[in-house]
Amino acid sequence: MATSSNIVICTGFAQGLRLICKHLLRRGVRTIAVEDPWHNQQRATVRAFGFRVIPIPVDEHGIRVDLLRKTEARAVIVTPAHQYPTGAVLSASRRSSLIDWACLKNALVIEDDYDAEYRYDREPIGALQGLAPDRVVYCGSASKILAPGLRLGWILLPADMVSDVASEKHEEDLGSPVMEQVTFADFINRGELDRHLRKSKIIYRRKRDLMIAAINKQFPSFRVRGVAAGLHLMVELPSEVDESALVASALEHAIGVYGVRPYRLRKGPPALILGYGALSELRISKGIQDLRLHWNPFLLE
Amino acid sequence: MATSSNIVICTGFAQGLRLICKHLLRRGVRTIAVEDPWHNQQRATVRAFGFRVIPIPVDEHGIRVDLLRKTEARAVIVTPAHQYPTGAVLSASRRSSLIDWACLKNALVIEDDYDAEYRYDREPIGALQGLAPDRVVYCGSASKILAPGLRLGWILLPADMVSDVASEKHEEDLGSPVMEQVTFADFINRGELDRHLRKSKIIYRRKRDLMIAAINKQFPSFRVRGVAAGLHLMVELPSEVDESALVASALEHAIGVYGVRPYRLRKGPPALILGYGALSELRISKGIQDLRLHWNPFLLE
Repeated sequence: MATSSNIVICTGFAQGLRLICKHLLRRGVRTIAVEDPWHNQQRATVRAFGFRVIPIPVDEHGIRVDLLRKTEARAVIVTPAHQYPTGAVLSASRRSSLIDWACLKNALVIEDDYDAEYRYDREPIGALQGLAPDRVVYCGSASKILAPGLRLGWILLPADMVSDVASEKHEEDLGSPVMEQVTFADFINRGELDRHLRKSKIIYRRKRDLMIAAINKQFPSFRVRGVAAGLHLMVELPSEVDESALVASALEHAIGVYGVRPYRLRKGPPALILGYGALSELRISKGIQDLRLHWNPFLLE
Repeated sequence: MATSSNIVICTGFAQGLRLICKHLLRRGVRTIAVEDPWHNQQRATVRAFGFRVIPIPVDEHGIRVDLLRKTEARAVIVTPAHQYPTGAVLSASRRSSLIDWACLKNALVIEDDYDAEYRYDREPIGALQGLAPDRVVYCGSASKILAPGLRLGWILLPADMVSDVASEKHEEDLGSPVMEQVTFADFINRGELDRHLRKSKIIYRRKRDLMIAAINKQFPSFRVRGVAAGLHLMVELPSEVDESALVASALEHAIGVYGVRPYRLRKGPPALILGYGALSELRISKGIQDLRLHWNPFLLE
């Protein structure tokens, strides 16, 4: 549940995470568990505040809550609706298990709901925050659902965190720009955001299907992971393939492909992240075809 | 001189100052000189980064550069166009003396040009930055000249600081909102900002003159300080008057008047800050009249 009294408006998850980190430090928290793999830049932010970072493996059902339970962590950052980058969705039993852990340990779950609206095979799953509003900090943003250039995000907070995080926000930049907030509220109230999401879901789903078909055709040994959602794919490579060689080769030909290794804290199979949100369908087909040519030498070994 | 290669866009002086503080820490700077009096919140920001803060007195010609020279500081934060809150303008000889100090000591001048456009008695004075672009960090903002809700500011940097400060900005929030930047650039290009400034200068000057006349009439023992500029007045009180009693009394009657004492690091005469930017002419006259009634008991002592 969101009411105006438990929301702090921020410029996106990057700032939201920083505000939360500052609050956790003041609460005496010194250790944060994170999903592994996860954003390396956001992990760097957490570390820059001096937190010890505990990596918790992710499988096809999301974060391994059983392993989280064995740690000393009193805070965890998760992407339950669509894990980044694996594309896994946190299963129902893990969701309740995670909330159970948070209640038992008096711990905090930081939920990054970065692209939850883009679920193509079913309705989006409800946020964890709805299950335990006093144990979950929810972070949402207009970056994926509308435009990253807006720099508009929102944090739903447990009641006892609101005034502290709001003060931090005020100290950082005296508050977010007003115009976007008013405009975005109007956009939502007029039903335009819903219309935009319905329309863009169809477009993104087509792009996703097209990219998967192209990958399956050109690279039959690659395995597309994750549910039908979001704006990117994670593709697992055969274990003998050199992930970073593929990334470097793509980059050389000006094709943006990311390796998962920089996102991992523990070893894992070689894998790539391919985004399709901003590409035309033509560019997607052409791009995968081109990659086939450029990657041939690395795959034949 | 500003070119696109030495500007970092930020959300205003609050963020700009934080980015500069981070850079100075990495450069090994541990001491910053500031004007006294100056914003207490911004001083708190500087201190929060662990800097030792050296207060340098301000007189009617601006910061006492002769006293700055005697310190160990290698960085100073100044408001040369319109000192906050005294309203003094840094004199021509002090300006060159300040730049001279910066070059001699290889020091950095951080110039907060918060309301420089609002000069009512003559053309605005050029920025310090133009005198020594490699020794001055210039901070500008749309907050005073257009609207604080925009959260749009800009930092002009010496060439060797640009990439570092730009990285800090990216790390903090991945960049400022795009829409305002495009709109503001268009607003400037079409000459609208100049028209807006010409128009609002007339309005603010009338308000200022009105407020000064009202103060002189109701409080003949008060002394209005500072040049004809900006959006606020500093008023010096007779030495026996209790500054904080006046502030509390005004607040009790919902009139926003600020004391200068919280802004001071060293002792100074009792003084008040009165803003007129957002008030109608009627409210200004009425407000000063009302203050006369409320303050009578404190002034008769």
